[in-house]
Amino acid sequence: MRHQVIMACRDPPAPARLKVLAVTHYSRLCKIVIDVPQEVHGQELAFWQGATGQEMVQAFRYPEYHGADLPGQEIGLLVQRIGGGQSRVHVDIHTDDLEAEVGRLEALGAKREFQAHAWWVMSDPAGLLFCVVPDEPGALHDQNAQRWD
Amino acid sequence: MRHQVIMACRDPPAPARLKVLAVTHYSRLCKIVIDVPQEVHGQELAFWQGATGQEMVQAFRYPEYHGADLPGQEIGLLVQRIGGGQSRVHVDIHTDDLEAEVGRLEALGAKREFQAHAWWVMSDPAGLLFCVVPDEPGALHDQNAQRWD
Repeated sequence: MRHQVIMACRDPPAPARLKVLAVTHYSRLCKIVIDVPQEVHGQELAFWQGATGQEMVQAFRYPEYHGADLPGQEIGLLVQRIGGGQSRVHVDIHTDDLEAEVGRLEALGAKREFQAHAWWVMSDPAGLLFCVVPDEPGALHDQNAQRWD
Repeated sequence: MRHQVIMACRDPPAPARLKVLAVTHYSRLCKIVIDVPQEVHGQELAFWQGATGQEMVQAFRYPEYHGADLPGQEIGLLVQRIGGGQSRVHVDIHTDDLEAEVGRLEALGAKREFQAHAWWVMSDPAGLLFCVVPDEPGALHDQNAQRWD
């Protein structure tokens, strides 16, 4: 949990008088990502489009991703073309406060692996990779996400 | 797609007069499943409970599964204790017609791997395993699933 240091206006800014205030943030498990290397990417994309009945649209900013919403769901499905290695499935956690959420997950036993674009790749206690992705301000609230005080 | 053979009442039941009628069914991507071997199962379960803020309840009939709904979502999260091997993430597709859905996915390029309990384990074109699970009658409809005519 991130803490913000607040100084009371009437008091001198002495370290002993600093007050620590917890800042609320939100997070939720938001995407299922299927990672596949180039050689099976076309087949895989076609398969998951057919399986879900949804057109998967290529992301303009990150063209290695194709994504679709799922009928009646807030969770979306992505297919990512990876440079090489084994195919796998991972999940993305979205949050409105990246540092607070990454810190919270570290305290639960996850590890920071590396930063990619605007997000963090982390590993869970079993070594499975997952991403923590900053969401647009206001996208997460009490009705669709978990609030952390 | 499954087809049902319907015989017209007034006509003789000659093969040439048989009418083939498509039967509607529904499916949707419904669960994210984290598979981990015994040695990290406790840690993994604790981590994903903390990460999502949801208590994961042990399934009575299949005690190797713990599951939780996700806030504001219809998709649920499961942690499965597996006998051994590598940890991984897989998805479950739920359907109200198992044979029709498995056949539809085969036609798209998936393969049947084996039956487990009431469901089929299949592999996608990249070799990733996923499950096709029969859902309760009436659970899937136009608002929460994809209809296949």
